[in-house]
Amino acid sequence: MKTKINKKSYFRQDIEEMDGYTPGEQPKMLNLIKLNTNENPYPPSPKVLEAIKNFELNHLRLYPDPLCDGIRDVIADLHGLKRENVIAGNGSDDILTMAVRCFTDNQSPAACFNPTYSLYTVLAKMQGAKCIRIPLKKDFSLPANVIKKADGANLLLIARPNSPTGCSYPLKKIAKICEKFDGTVLIDEAYADFAGDNCADFVKCFDNVIISRTMSKSYSLAGIRFGYALSSPEIIEGMMKVKDSYNVNMLTQVAVKAALQDREYLAKTVAKILNTRKRLIKELKALKFEIVESDANFVFAAPPDEDAKKLFNILRENQIVTRYFPGRNTGKYVRISIGTDEQIKKLLEVTKELYQPR
Amino acid sequence: MKTKINKKSYFRQDIEEMDGYTPGEQPKMLNLIKLNTNENPYPPSPKVLEAIKNFELNHLRLYPDPLCDGIRDVIADLHGLKRENVIAGNGSDDILTMAVRCFTDNQSPAACFNPTYSLYTVLAKMQGAKCIRIPLKKDFSLPANVIKKADGANLLLIARPNSPTGCSYPLKKIAKICEKFDGTVLIDEAYADFAGDNCADFVKCFDNVIISRTMSKSYSLAGIRFGYALSSPEIIEGMMKVKDSYNVNMLTQVAVKAALQDREYLAKTVAKILNTRKRLIKELKALKFEIVESDANFVFAAPPDEDAKKLFNILRENQIVTRYFPGRNTGKYVRISIGTDEQIKKLLEVTKELYQPR
Repeated sequence: MKTKINKKSYFRQDIEEMDGYTPGEQPKMLNLIKLNTNENPYPPSPKVLEAIKNFELNHLRLYPDPLCDGIRDVIADLHGLKRENVIAGNGSDDILTMAVRCFTDNQSPAACFNPTYSLYTVLAKMQGAKCIRIPLKKDFSLPANVIKKADGANLLLIARPNSPTGCSYPLKKIAKICEKFDGTVLIDEAYADFAGDNCADFVKCFDNVIISRTMSKSYSLAGIRFGYALSSPEIIEGMMKVKDSYNVNMLTQVAVKAALQDREYLAKTVAKILNTRKRLIKELKALKFEIVESDANFVFAAPPDEDAKKLFNILRENQIVTRYFPGRNTGKYVRISIGTDEQIKKLLEVTKELYQPR
Repeated sequence: MKTKINKKSYFRQDIEEMDGYTPGEQPKMLNLIKLNTNENPYPPSPKVLEAIKNFELNHLRLYPDPLCDGIRDVIADLHGLKRENVIAGNGSDDILTMAVRCFTDNQSPAACFNPTYSLYTVLAKMQGAKCIRIPLKKDFSLPANVIKKADGANLLLIARPNSPTGCSYPLKKIAKICEKFDGTVLIDEAYADFAGDNCADFVKCFDNVIISRTMSKSYSLAGIRFGYALSSPEIIEGMMKVKDSYNVNMLTQVAVKAALQDREYLAKTVAKILNTRKRLIKELKALKFEIVESDANFVFAAPPDEDAKKLFNILRENQIVTRYFPGRNTGKYVRISIGTDEQIKKLLEVTKELYQPR
């Protein structure tokens, strides 16, 4: 046996040319204050811990329910929909992947705003699909003529609330876009539980809308990997063809069902985060930061000297990890996930040291 | 707001036209003897249960390690390779998906044998890729001129041992194919722990070979979803671009690490299954069944009257679920997963009732 000598790339061209998506850093040091990937600072519901503890682990020898029907029914109930309106994903990134694979290819472009969740363009590239990037206004609000700008796209991806900016778009304007767009609109509502409103009811009005949700933020379950989509039965049925048969493991199914049913814990945790967000914004504004209005569990904040890179680095030197997005529109901001009161207090101490007038 | 009236399909054509993959039935009735999807009849290692019990569940609020480096190192050690030779999947179906997305599209066909794991053709169809199906010989052994028959394909998928047949192919012939094939060869070794040999060392000789493994069969962890691939660092690096960032959840990472390290339990469980397989084959042969030589944790067995559908149905009436694959080459066989001795005893009782000469 000898080594094959073959210098060409084995990969198809789209993959060869592309860069993969770079997720936020997941540092392994435990003493860091981790405010970089919008995790929830509070533990998951005690019901989740109980459900996992009570699970008969010997069942792990069997395949899980491929369709997650037990969870689909709970989700359908939550949103006043039917099981046929729901599909389960291994995190909401899995939902995004399914949608991009279903609706885009080299003949069928995607479209999204800019800036937004950078995974959208990466997923389109994997499909060999063009991704039309529609610039947001300078204040990150919706531009005019979205439908015209997205012309030709077969899938429009809208993060609402948006990331990394944290702001939302008027519900009526999004409804109008869903009505007029000649293709499928995916509204990525990863942060919707921290916002004043959401688009879930659109599924009852439009057959071309997909709402994507995650358990990673408001439910404190980033480690368990679960997201879901709501849509018309026709779209769910088509997405099922692309779904990996056993995409959601057995323990995740057990944990998620328990988490979804503990509405009280969710409400309590979200309320705490919204309180902390309010105080953080107030204190940063007092330091003359420019703050993008936040409907999410993070704030996008520009320091008075607009040197966000410096702030990011100094926070990091103080064991506080935030996230910095280089670029013309985003480069003057730092994205700060809402931590516990104590964590935010430490962040503010370092920040005041830098920006408080003496 | 009004319902959008749009009768065209939103899906791209490949998805619209295709049928999804149909996984084996996962019945929810607990009193069934489930011998249809090649699960392990024995529970996972006690070390797995211990690892999950000891896991600090509050950590679930955080994202998991996106690369699974802790597990990659254990796997690399097992195979005498390096971390850079290993990629982790949410089950080995996830590995197959990554490979098909990396190497096939409408210009780059896949190839596989027939019959084999039917997911291969489904995944190719999703990519808009042609899948060249190379018929095995009537006894399910390798045909002549595989390289010529696979001409033009950029990815050759080989299940070894094969499913649903259970038989293997000579190691030297597979090495020759890897050497000559002008593209990537993925050897799906889901059942390799039940076989006399395997191709893992090919990774040390060929830069175009991917070995895929799963924890679902020999490790009794179908419910936890974990598979991995071994390949050259160049191929692993490219597959990483396509991998979902957080494809393997935190509890799975903990469970899998414990399972991989308990070599003694694995060896013991596999030995029990091989013993039961041997006895099942002997008894079925005594009833004049035709048995395909098995290197897996199942047997592909044709009853003497070749009416496999009838046998399948009668077993089912007796609460024993096996799997039946209609079709010209496979239709006379029933696939029976190796259960516990007691389960196989019950299956043999029903079978003897039907086929024992009186």
